Amino acid sequence: MKKKIRIAMIGGGPGSFIGNIHRIAMRLDNDYDLIAGAFSSSLEKSKTTGEELGLDPSRIYPDYTTLIKKELQLPAEDRIEAVSIVTPNHLHFAPAKLALENGIHVVLDKPATLSLSEALELQKVLENSTAKFCLTHTYTGYPMVKEARYQVLSGNLGKIKKVVVSYPQGWLSKAASPDNKQAAWRTDPTKSGIAGAMGDIGTHAFNLLEYVSGLKVTAISAQVNTIVPHRLLDDDGGAFLQLENGGVGVLLASQVATGEENNLSISVYGEYAGLKWEQSDNESLIIKNLEAPDVILRRGEGYLSSYAKHNSRTPSGHPEGYLEAFANIYHNFALSLHAFENGEEPQKEWLDFPGIEEAVRGMAFIETIIQNGKSYDKWTNFPL
Amino acid sequence: MKKKIRIAMIGGGPGSFIGNIHRIAMRLDNDYDLIAGAFSSSLEKSKTTGEELGLDPSRIYPDYTTLIKKELQLPAEDRIEAVSIVTPNHLHFAPAKLALENGIHVVLDKPATLSLSEALELQKVLENSTAKFCLTHTYTGYPMVKEARYQVLSGNLGKIKKVVVSYPQGWLSKAASPDNKQAAWRTDPTKSGIAGAMGDIGTHAFNLLEYVSGLKVTAISAQVNTIVPHRLLDDDGGAFLQLENGGVGVLLASQVATGEENNLSISVYGEYAGLKWEQSDNESLIIKNLEAPDVILRRGEGYLSSYAKHNSRTPSGHPEGYLEAFANIYHNFALSLHAFENGEEPQKEWLDFPGIEEAVRGMAFIETIIQNGKSYDKWTNFPL
Amino acid sequence: MKKKIRIAMIGGGPGSFIGNIHRIAMRLDNDYDLIAGAFSSSLEKSKTTGEELGLDPSRIYPDYTTLIKKELQLPAEDRIEAVSIVTPNHLHFAPAKLALENGIHVVLDKPATLSLSEALELQKVLENSTAKFCLTHTYTGYPMVKEARYQVLSGNLGKIKKVVVSYPQGWLSKAASPDNKQAAWRTDPTKSGIAGAMGDIGTHAFNLLEYVSGLKVTAISAQVNTIVPHRLLDDDGGAFLQLENGGVGVLLASQVATGEENNLSISVYGEYAGLKWEQSDNESLIIKNLEAPDVILRRGEGYLSSYAKHNSRTPSGHPEGYLEAFANIYHNFALSLHAFENGEEPQKEWLDFPGIEEAVRGMAFIETIIQNGKSYDKWTNFPL
Amino acid sequence: MKKKIRIAMIGGGPGSFIGNIHRIAMRLDNDYDLIAGAFSSSLEKSKTTGEELGLDPSRIYPDYTTLIKKELQLPAEDRIEAVSIVTPNHLHFAPAKLALENGIHVVLDKPATLSLSEALELQKVLENSTAKFCLTHTYTGYPMVKEARYQVLSGNLGKIKKVVVSYPQGWLSKAASPDNKQAAWRTDPTKSGIAGAMGDIGTHAFNLLEYVSGLKVTAISAQVNTIVPHRLLDDDGGAFLQLENGGVGVLLASQVATGEENNLSISVYGEYAGLKWEQSDNESLIIKNLEAPDVILRRGEGYLSSYAKHNSRTPSGHPEGYLEAFANIYHNFALSLHAFENGEEPQKEWLDFPGIEEAVRGMAFIETIIQNGKSYDKWTNFPL
Repeated sequence: MKKKIRIAMIGGGPGSFIGNIHRIAMRLDNDYDLIAGAFSSSLEKSKTTGEELGLDPSRIYPDYTTLIKKELQLPAEDRIEAVSIVTPNHLHFAPAKLALENGIHVVLDKPATLSLSEALELQKVLENSTAKFCLTHTYTGYPMVKEARYQVLSGNLGKIKKVVVSYPQGWLSKAASPDNKQAAWRTDPTKSGIAGAMGDIGTHAFNLLEYVSGLKVTAISAQVNTIVPHRLLDDDGGAFLQLENGGVGVLLASQVATGEENNLSISVYGEYAGLKWEQSDNESLIIKNLEAPDVILRRGEGYLSSYAKHNSRTPSGHPEGYLEAFANIYHNFALSLHAFENGEEPQKEWLDFPGIEEAVRGMAFIETIIQNGKSYDKWTNFPL
Repeated sequence: MKKKIRIAMIGGGPGSFIGNIHRIAMRLDNDYDLIAGAFSSSLEKSKTTGEELGLDPSRIYPDYTTLIKKELQLPAEDRIEAVSIVTPNHLHFAPAKLALENGIHVVLDKPATLSLSEALELQKVLENSTAKFCLTHTYTGYPMVKEARYQVLSGNLGKIKKVVVSYPQGWLSKAASPDNKQAAWRTDPTKSGIAGAMGDIGTHAFNLLEYVSGLKVTAISAQVNTIVPHRLLDDDGGAFLQLENGGVGVLLASQVATGEENNLSISVYGEYAGLKWEQSDNESLIIKNLEAPDVILRRGEGYLSSYAKHNSRTPSGHPEGYLEAFANIYHNFALSLHAFENGEEPQKEWLDFPGIEEAVRGMAFIETIIQNGKSYDKWTNFPL
Repeated sequence: MKKKIRIAMIGGGPGSFIGNIHRIAMRLDNDYDLIAGAFSSSLEKSKTTGEELGLDPSRIYPDYTTLIKKELQLPAEDRIEAVSIVTPNHLHFAPAKLALENGIHVVLDKPATLSLSEALELQKVLENSTAKFCLTHTYTGYPMVKEARYQVLSGNLGKIKKVVVSYPQGWLSKAASPDNKQAAWRTDPTKSGIAGAMGDIGTHAFNLLEYVSGLKVTAISAQVNTIVPHRLLDDDGGAFLQLENGGVGVLLASQVATGEENNLSISVYGEYAGLKWEQSDNESLIIKNLEAPDVILRRGEGYLSSYAKHNSRTPSGHPEGYLEAFANIYHNFALSLHAFENGEEPQKEWLDFPGIEEAVRGMAFIETIIQNGKSYDKWTNFPL
Repeated sequence: MKKKIRIAMIGGGPGSFIGNIHRIAMRLDNDYDLIAGAFSSSLEKSKTTGEELGLDPSRIYPDYTTLIKKELQLPAEDRIEAVSIVTPNHLHFAPAKLALENGIHVVLDKPATLSLSEALELQKVLENSTAKFCLTHTYTGYPMVKEARYQVLSGNLGKIKKVVVSYPQGWLSKAASPDNKQAAWRTDPTKSGIAGAMGDIGTHAFNLLEYVSGLKVTAISAQVNTIVPHRLLDDDGGAFLQLENGGVGVLLASQVATGEENNLSISVYGEYAGLKWEQSDNESLIIKNLEAPDVILRRGEGYLSSYAKHNSRTPSGHPEGYLEAFANIYHNFALSLHAFENGEEPQKEWLDFPGIEEAVRGMAFIETIIQNGKSYDKWTNFPL
């Protein structure tokens, strides 16, 4: 009989956008039982969310330390096995560390921490823990993004010469009203860290680029801008990149691209062919051949790689999207946890979720792009 | 504290496509507890599915009559409140009738029954039952389909002159292998009824047309074809339509449109403007103005009607799709059931799910189009 | 040294849309010298157009009979070799007949004549003439339409099972103002003939279907509507079709599809694959494979057939369109005329322009669809 | 009676791509008589082209100096009034200068010259000439590009914050065969100048950006790459830009973007709205509103600005493209020349073609981006 993973959520109280997304993602494939939470710094609000979710009131806690401490006192078969941490950035590191130190698996929203040094510390904690770690870089959960990576790593494009990733959003085009909880913390350095847009979405773009190309960035030449007056963090920027194989890259990210929704896209150009994926048509992957006709690979089709197929629920033409991509991360983490628990090696498709390396590289990206953006020197080497 | 609706599933065992879709749809918004099932005519297979879902083995039943009988013997607070019926067409009517007669709510896959007379009988049973009924015409669950209906009913297009709905699929382009369970029953008159493609997807197209236009079809002139040799039911066809307001319509549906995925679309033309929605770009609704520029309405945006907003979970640019559309039907049914239970009037957005009228009209459509397709007379009046 | 064909135009005076299109099409490839004209029934207006075009005033004539008579009196090396007839439908037959009878080549706008009998008579005149005939069904001049035909005739799709052609326009959605010259004659039976939309654009759709599929229509079941009150001719309609190989078809055409521009499209479904072309993306041809990924063929690429290549001027990504498609007809007619004049067999790509057979079948289509549209019988056999 | 401008062509002999494009552009609107040429450095080849075009053999010249000298000896009413110069870059300056010095109007292909200093000298020559000058930056000839500029300059987007222009091509993805005449001179510094891709297409992107935004670039931070081994000039690159109003920009251009056709696009983001145009859908201009729905403006519609309308020949839905955009430049230059000749002020829509300022700024762009691309300093100020 199927055993669901008992999980608690830290953050995700009233008004949280990403908390509800994580909860839907947990439920979609029936892998998790959300049974406890410290949803808010206000116990009142935390209880409201807990009630809405139908949780046992005794499992609603005032804060993450209490949550972890009390849960550990419960019988092993009742207590949580994992936590999902969906707080603003400044409240990522401490609960993640405490959970890992106590053998509790961690699903963490991105960017991983407030600084690269925190991420590196978390990496050490993880190395000494029996627990596992998963970072929710949503976009690499899309089946056709996985297919893109498969096409590149299979050599179908030849040596990669150039990668262009672009992530324009428009929702911060104006100074945000203080009522906009999402905008408020993202533009507050005490909660977001040293980066605004570069941390919030630049890291997604960076992660997508390294994931699909299978190549590490080695140097960055950036322009980082604050377009909206009086904003304390960057809201726009980009970088030219050097890649470990000698290829080049371009990364663009903006939250002031007026009228844009959430239009993440990536183009990869190899010796023999290019490819393009964009979230606004997330179920297609276009292979652009140098001399033969372009080909459209579609989610749900039988000709796809095992990675794309494993991360898909419906036949082609029955659109899946963002929530399903998010759920793929949770599902693969769950499958891997079950395998580990049973002393089995997870299938390679199950292990294909973002982890601590992505966490560390994401923080390195933030620190490098912000530093170079302020510099008169053209290039800064990537620190890792 | 949130009360989830206790539900059982009839059908949806190993190899079922639509069963898993219904289960995901139930889970997505946390409204249901799936606690019992008669998933297959084989008890063995039923148990397999039950185990995979983590159900209590005592709640896995050999057939729907046992399921309903035994559940009714459980204490009121434990027994199921609803059933989800996802069997092939010929096994829709009997369990639905039995459930309704026993005050158990019914979620039923389409087409409702094997014949119009069964549907009419079910309508009578429902009138005398305390239970409620929901028919899962998925496509009217899309937020932008609801917006399309809202635009039409608000009069923004003026009087409707013409509606064109088209539903090409290609998956039955060749004679199906007997191993293909989905194809097998759909092309078998003893399980599917008198119609093949007209019943399986023609009814969806018909439902979409009447839902979006707010108009009833009054007469049909059809061409119904069996393209693949030796197939026993139609796999292709279409109809010209007359509408109750004097307007005209075209309905096309095919399962032998080689290479097509699931490309349902609708265009509505009014005096002042037209609109177009297609499932392959389900988050957009295009308003085509006669003299002003075309406008693209997008799911997740603040300017939409309350119907589109209510049926949406993520901001624009974070794609939702088929599973979310399906979940909207379950969610609205759940919200309505809670309201009824509390003696409250459900909000109008909650009541916006397909019910017994759609069930009856869908069966009337099947019988009319098949009859006219065989006739040398050009037109057949719609019987209702 | 290149010899241009000396041509006159009949019709195409002030306010004419199609006259200017024909003139651009003539010029584009430098094949014709437009040196004479009877542009209008008003000599004054005819002179105005002649002057704007820089023509010798002595070659501007009051009517087509004078034009042909006077030109024949000029020395052979000066007189016109061809006429382009761009008048409303009721003024097609007589000048075309007179020209052909006098050995003057004819380029004729569609539909060919006012009636099938006129078209059949023109066919006989042509058989006894030394002159050649070309009908400007623009849309078969598109390179990717030619590629579509090539793909079908090469057998790449297997046996054709179904064809769907759709041609929605919205420009006649309202009763047209009398000032709208284009609308006025098209909705006037004395100038347009027995059909409105079916003649104006239905014939294009019909021609496209037969051209791309390489199949003749053998029977029609139609719905023909007049949507705008008080209009004297049809403005909307469609037909189910039977094809000579046992396949089926659908043809839709409307000029009251509010907000639509000129959105001609065709889908062809064969045993192994389908294809789709639409004017709104005229440089792409999508091949929809049953099991392999879809493929996008693009104008200007080296992998295309000789038909597509021959009818193309710029590399891929440098968009060509309607005027170039129109010019292809003129260019191929010119190449063929030169070859005939030199006693050579034209290349097969040059002979690929619409001629008298298309003229006759187009008129048969008009008469058949209008007749069946008024009938209570479902089917009318195609008369040819 | 319409007077056509007598024009000669310099360059454009056998194997030339752009020569034929210019000739089609001249013919399309019936404004020019191409009556003379020095099409090639080989008189033999020049005669071949002249014959194909039907030119008088006495007007085919061995070189541009002879052409200009001999034509000046002809009677004023016979001699050329203008030259079209379509040679490789290194043969732009001298004939352009000679023509202008002799009062002959010049249409010059881009980039204007081999160096900024040549462009500045040409500017001085022009100031002292009675003749006029036109530079064929094709892409600003598109009606919907003109509409984009109109929307920006009208203030409909508010203050411009950011502009992104991208121009990926793939045709130089591999080392070109020596037979490829187009590739050969473009990758040869003695013919192309100091820049490869940055000169060939980077200048188009730069011109588009300044034209649409109405803003001058003030500083550049570039990455300029040579991706294909042994190539002597850049084939890929990009730049971050500072704009005169404090806004920022991104410019990307590549000729090694494997599988890309000619996919020029521009996005402009203002305070209230953004806009997007791309050549692959050249007839649409999307206005992306911050809170209202997106709007699609379409070529050929009545609601457009006078700039878009004036540069359009067919109704919406009858696609125009690259050749028509090119023809718009020639047509507007012709209309302006006629007005000047008649002592009239040309309409503002006629004067909307690229001229000497665009020539000079284009060369400044080339020199600046190449210089900064080699520098370790992040920014280089634009020299003008």
